Amino acid sequence: MEEKARINVITGEKSQVFWALPGQDLWSFLAAHNFINDDNNNCGGRGYCGKCKIKVEGKVNDLTSTEKEKLLPDEIRKGIRLACHCRIAGEVSVYVEEKNAEFRLSDKAPFAFSPEMIRDEETVKVVNFFIPGLDDLAPSPIYDRLVEAWHGYKLDLTMDNLNHLLLFDRAGRPAIELKALVFDNRVVKRIDKKIEGVYGLALDLGTTSLFAALVDLEKGEIKGVISRTNMQRIYGADIISRVSYCLEKEDGLNKMHRILINNINSMIKELAEEENISTEQIYKITAAGNPVMLHFLAGLSVRGFAAAPYAGIFKQGLKLEAWKLGINVNMQADLFILPQVGGFVGGDTVACILSLEPDPPARYLLVDIGTNGEVVLACGDRMWAASAAAGPAFEGGNITSGGRAEEGSINKFYLDEEENLRFTFIGEGQVKNICGSAVIDLVSCLLTAGYIDNRGIITEKARQRLKVTAGSRGSEIVICDDIKMVRNNPLVFNQEDIRQVQLAKGAIRTAIDILMHKAGISEDDLDYILLAGTFGSYLNPTNCIKIGLLPGVEVSKIKNIGNAAAKGAIMALVSSKMLKKAEEIKGKVEYVELAREADFEERFINNLDFDVRRL
Amino acid sequence: MEEKARINVITGEKSQVFWALPGQDLWSFLAAHNFINDDNNNCGGRGYCGKCKIKVEGKVNDLTSTEKEKLLPDEIRKGIRLACHCRIAGEVSVYVEEKNAEFRLSDKAPFAFSPEMIRDEETVKVVNFFIPGLDDLAPSPIYDRLVEAWHGYKLDLTMDNLNHLLLFDRAGRPAIELKALVFDNRVVKRIDKKIEGVYGLALDLGTTSLFAALVDLEKGEIKGVISRTNMQRIYGADIISRVSYCLEKEDGLNKMHRILINNINSMIKELAEEENISTEQIYKITAAGNPVMLHFLAGLSVRGFAAAPYAGIFKQGLKLEAWKLGINVNMQADLFILPQVGGFVGGDTVACILSLEPDPPARYLLVDIGTNGEVVLACGDRMWAASAAAGPAFEGGNITSGGRAEEGSINKFYLDEEENLRFTFIGEGQVKNICGSAVIDLVSCLLTAGYIDNRGIITEKARQRLKVTAGSRGSEIVICDDIKMVRNNPLVFNQEDIRQVQLAKGAIRTAIDILMHKAGISEDDLDYILLAGTFGSYLNPTNCIKIGLLPGVEVSKIKNIGNAAAKGAIMALVSSKMLKKAEEIKGKVEYVELAREADFEERFINNLDFDVRRL
Repeated sequence: MEEKARINVITGEKSQVFWALPGQDLWSFLAAHNFINDDNNNCGGRGYCGKCKIKVEGKVNDLTSTEKEKLLPDEIRKGIRLACHCRIAGEVSVYVEEKNAEFRLSDKAPFAFSPEMIRDEETVKVVNFFIPGLDDLAPSPIYDRLVEAWHGYKLDLTMDNLNHLLLFDRAGRPAIELKALVFDNRVVKRIDKKIEGVYGLALDLGTTSLFAALVDLEKGEIKGVISRTNMQRIYGADIISRVSYCLEKEDGLNKMHRILINNINSMIKELAEEENISTEQIYKITAAGNPVMLHFLAGLSVRGFAAAPYAGIFKQGLKLEAWKLGINVNMQADLFILPQVGGFVGGDTVACILSLEPDPPARYLLVDIGTNGEVVLACGDRMWAASAAAGPAFEGGNITSGGRAEEGSINKFYLDEEENLRFTFIGEGQVKNICGSAVIDLVSCLLTAGYIDNRGIITEKARQRLKVTAGSRGSEIVICDDIKMVRNNPLVFNQEDIRQVQLAKGAIRTAIDILMHKAGISEDDLDYILLAGTFGSYLNPTNCIKIGLLPGVEVSKIKNIGNAAAKGAIMALVSSKMLKKAEEIKGKVEYVELAREADFEERFINNLDFDVRRL
Repeated sequence: MEEKARINVITGEKSQVFWALPGQDLWSFLAAHNFINDDNNNCGGRGYCGKCKIKVEGKVNDLTSTEKEKLLPDEIRKGIRLACHCRIAGEVSVYVEEKNAEFRLSDKAPFAFSPEMIRDEETVKVVNFFIPGLDDLAPSPIYDRLVEAWHGYKLDLTMDNLNHLLLFDRAGRPAIELKALVFDNRVVKRIDKKIEGVYGLALDLGTTSLFAALVDLEKGEIKGVISRTNMQRIYGADIISRVSYCLEKEDGLNKMHRILINNINSMIKELAEEENISTEQIYKITAAGNPVMLHFLAGLSVRGFAAAPYAGIFKQGLKLEAWKLGINVNMQADLFILPQVGGFVGGDTVACILSLEPDPPARYLLVDIGTNGEVVLACGDRMWAASAAAGPAFEGGNITSGGRAEEGSINKFYLDEEENLRFTFIGEGQVKNICGSAVIDLVSCLLTAGYIDNRGIITEKARQRLKVTAGSRGSEIVICDDIKMVRNNPLVFNQEDIRQVQLAKGAIRTAIDILMHKAGISEDDLDYILLAGTFGSYLNPTNCIKIGLLPGVEVSKIKNIGNAAAKGAIMALVSSKMLKKAEEIKGKVEYVELAREADFEERFINNLDFDVRRL
């Protein structure tokens, strides 16, 4: 194995160090590290859109003819390259614009999406007003004067707030100027001389990780984001184990609820400390998430998710008091749980759809890949949604050498010009496992080079060109067995692993096909395929089409919409119109229970094979 | 001292034992033990109304000529007597009707007032309804079906309630019959298969003691009452000391709030255990009380009560969440704090006025005697209220041998036919102090017999007939110095004690006079003088007029309305119309700040003298 090259990623004043194998193209390196998004990607690194312009210094190949064609002379002078045409040859410094770097949710860099435009002033505003001073002769208490000043509004103030107001209410002052924090032109949640910093919290609660964004509600600015491991995982990595735990243990539900609340509270604490605010300044929460997580949040039974017809206690949006659930924010803060579609299609999916407002495409397919893959098809004013039991293959589970993306994970496979299987991995030193997105790349490479056939069988060509041995789970392609390189066992990819990928992609593709069939449209009718979720941002669209996971659309129609559920939750936080819209979306989406569809079995079996149609 | 006679008071199946001195009339004995009320009293024991008919067995005097005139032959045959004409001669059994015994708030006997008639069905009702069962094909979660069934209502259910409902929601059932607990035709607070026992709590929070009634909201029945010492007293017996404490100590307010909440919670616990219900079944609370206590309840600053213009933070009625204050009732229970008039005239006074609904007398004077005496004058549609700083004399405070009514307290003075000063006391054994109501009796007796003059000076006649010595607080009338009888020091009543009584009655009478002057009416125009409060029920109306505390009306116009504040709080609990009425009353009552009245000083000084006008 060659020596890795140091890559300095410079964003504003911040510099991060990564390592990559010489020969890798800069686009795949940046995509693997999540620096590629809508703004600098249209063709998925396939070399023709000319959008991935980036300033590069250091050891790279010379300009290609395409670059000479796509780049302006001035850009060339400044050292701008197209990332997909630029190959790493040694140490390189690459300059990433902050807005692109902002897509990284794994650290505390701000979230890229900017909700200022969505913000609806009627949702939260601070209003100046006057009340008469305390009249010495006919003393009216301050609360009574406030009620009079805000006639027709609901005063929802803490007792501490009222006590605090006495500071300004001395007898003899003719009038007192105050500010009121007004929600939805209806409820006053704080009155003070100064109201500095009104915050809200948007949550996206996933099975594996929890996301929270702290938002300045007055300005519509995201002030901080945080993502933490869902600590419920000790009771089961997947959601169904946790549902079972709740059924078996009397205190199970309460335990799940408490763990989640503690988890959220510690995220709130970190965000508040980072922004240097009091948690008292958080007046509103919105929460997206899968149905089971939303039930855990409210402390509601998940029994209904253990068996058909998979109905929880609520699908409608819920308005709860955050304080009653034990969430450490302002005592008067409301928690809005976004509505759910049904079955395992939750508030996260509704939030994803919401995130496309105010101008959603006419016809699109939205796919959120996970252990449960959610698929939504929108066709004009109608929408269908289904949940596909994909299993954990795309998260690296059930794959012999698979695992979660972390230090030492292979995060990208590609074929070099001689059809050698090459990879990149996270961090330095030794290789540990193959993460989910790389599993898709691997299968795609194997198919492209003819190392496996249309039915997933390892071919003679593979046996000639790669190292293939016999293993307990069928023939094994050895990915890496250099003892200096591998941390634990050699990394392999065997016949059974391929089967797992087939099952996963078959499940998701079947969901897509059934929804398209319901809508009566073909893949050519789609305006976009939208990939949601953090995982989606790591996927190579070309490879997803190649293995048949996604329909064979123009690759430029595949858009990564990033953490769209979080974006939707933020939109619902800063605009009550958007919150209402979420309820409308829920009402519009038709939930499709796949297992009930007559042709489900047949479609699923057909979809296990790989579609090797060339793009 | 003669040997005391055993008195058996029999109420229904219950028998209580008391002890009394032979020679005492049965009326004063019963009044002292709070068995006399509106139903069996009109002339205050003065012997002419004929209302205090009571069945008596045992050693008593023979029938008087008045009794022979007032009693029917059949009544005489049954052993009925007029209590005020019947003198105790030895062991006696007396039969008290339950409704009269029910006025005793000091034990757990039910409160006499029955709110069934006041109860407004729209305030609380249980409604039967159906929802469709869980559809196997298009499963709508139970919450969504409930929202649909209760369209236009607010569902304010606990998460536990929702979880509980899953018990009845099995797939395949065509419809589920449920019951909903509906408040004010607007909010649903519980949904269940059976709703058994919906309770509310009415509070009256006084400086010295706290009262709570547990009410069945569906039936409008009082299920239990309880009265407990206000544990805040360790921070000051009077309210002003507690206000000062809060100003001095940073944590003072919070401490007062916590003590009160703990106090209330332990009363709730006792009431719930007694009635064998869960505190979860308490869905609503109303609270009357003096302004400072109501601020302590909400945890609001009492700083405004430390100095003129004596304005707190709120006068309007407040609706708070009981649970947020730490009160152990249903998590969704609302706490309604009754509106206040202003200054030290609080929600208890509003509740007293409310208690006269639905047919209040046209013109009445309402007096609640305490350290702060509240006085209300109603004249048609107008009302005036004032708070008189009476000081603690009428509670036995500032009186050399005074004290709270308890075991060993002298609770009644009377003159025998030879103008000897006689008394009765609570319990057996030794005499400890003179309680507040007995102080009024004592002064009245001293005036009647001419032992003190119109200006309160101990007369020559007293020195001849009573034992009068010189003390540090002026000449002292020795009430009891028999070392076998007195527990601690001899009981005395001196010139300074008389002065304290003059100050107290002067303050209250001045308030009465000023309000009557404002209304432009004289005492002859009054329909009633209503005495409120537990203390009021111990007062002898004749004596109150004699010392000039109350205007000289026909004694039959003086009515004891008992714990009217508690009654008002209960009415507001069982009827939202009454709660609204309380707000109207607050808006109607004109608060009069006595110290600002031009003639206050002059009137007060004039009122220090005793009015010895014979009735």
